Amino acid sequence: MSRWQPDARGRMVRAAMDLFTERGFEQTTAGDIAERAGVTERTFFRHFTDKREVLFSGSEAVGRTVAEAIRSAPADLPPVDVALTGVVAVARVLEDDHGHSARRARIVEANPALRERELLKLASLVETATGALRARGVDPLTADLAAHSAVTAFQVGFARWVAEADPPALGTRIAETAAALRALWPAAESAAPGRQPR
Amino acid sequence: MSRWQPDARGRMVRAAMDLFTERGFEQTTAGDIAERAGVTERTFFRHFTDKREVLFSGSEAVGRTVAEAIRSAPADLPPVDVALTGVVAVARVLEDDHGHSARRARIVEANPALRERELLKLASLVETATGALRARGVDPLTADLAAHSAVTAFQVGFARWVAEADPPALGTRIAETAAALRALWPAAESAAPGRQPR
Repeated sequence: MSRWQPDARGRMVRAAMDLFTERGFEQTTAGDIAERAGVTERTFFRHFTDKREVLFSGSEAVGRTVAEAIRSAPADLPPVDVALTGVVAVARVLEDDHGHSARRARIVEANPALRERELLKLASLVETATGALRARGVDPLTADLAAHSAVTAFQVGFARWVAEADPPALGTRIAETAAALRALWPAAESAAPGRQPR
Repeated sequence: MSRWQPDARGRMVRAAMDLFTERGFEQTTAGDIAERAGVTERTFFRHFTDKREVLFSGSEAVGRTVAEAIRSAPADLPPVDVALTGVVAVARVLEDDHGHSARRARIVEANPALRERELLKLASLVETATGALRARGVDPLTADLAAHSAVTAFQVGFARWVAEADPPALGTRIAETAAALRALWPAAESAAPGRQPR
């Protein structure tokens, strides 16, 4: 083990993905991951709170990207479009990494504890987007619902993208999913709040 | 401890809520819950897989209610309205229990492990609703997005309802939240897919 270790974090992520695939998540310890990555367990816990967290190291960057895109969206854009702008921007962070994203998605999907953590990260992305929308003066309920809708477009678009063998750009897939989400509503509109017995 | 124990399950739920409030979730064991409820640990594990699960015993009933309401919705209703009909029907299951629901929500909110489990239950509600919509012939993407949207209306409406001191009926709150969700989109519509540079 050399004293100078470039990208220790990246090596821990790759080691964890290898071990979760080979042995399963439950059968892998933080110590196993550290050993495979060539770092001490102490180093592991300086970077991650637990073995689940290794697969979620990109979450902060995703949150920051969404918040920044929402902050800088045009002032006259309706709230739901501002929120969608936020999640489409995430594509810039994840775009280049289809192989890694696809493998990671399979690992997460296979384990309930990892799925739970993934859902918590998505929930915190909703909170981040809600906060950024409210900072633009959007009322709390609208901000919350617009953030949920945008994260739905992201989550469903991302799940489709990782499942594809030869996918288009992630941003394209998310924008397309957002358009399908929008298309749900106009058709329903006439049947909705205004609907009254004649 | 009498040999005949009516409502052992209900007593375990109440004991868990008391203990999670008094000591915190982490400091409470399954054995503590069993003891407080006057049952053996063996009985506890016949009813629940772990101490988290005690707070989620109503989830199956919620899923069944949503699936059944989607199944029996009018044939000509647009998919998103079918899905919303499903979650509004859940109000019938939870309606009478504002005090319990509010207390439970505070406990769940205070602990990340419980929040993760709550999110997993909501995700499985999305899957249930998606499956029920697909069984009506709705295409997979539309079914998935309509189910997500309906569960958003449920989740946000329910969170508002439990936070209120003197709330209206849960069904009213969810239907109102669904209307606010719908109202996000018409305003955005003109700015959306058809928007092109002149």
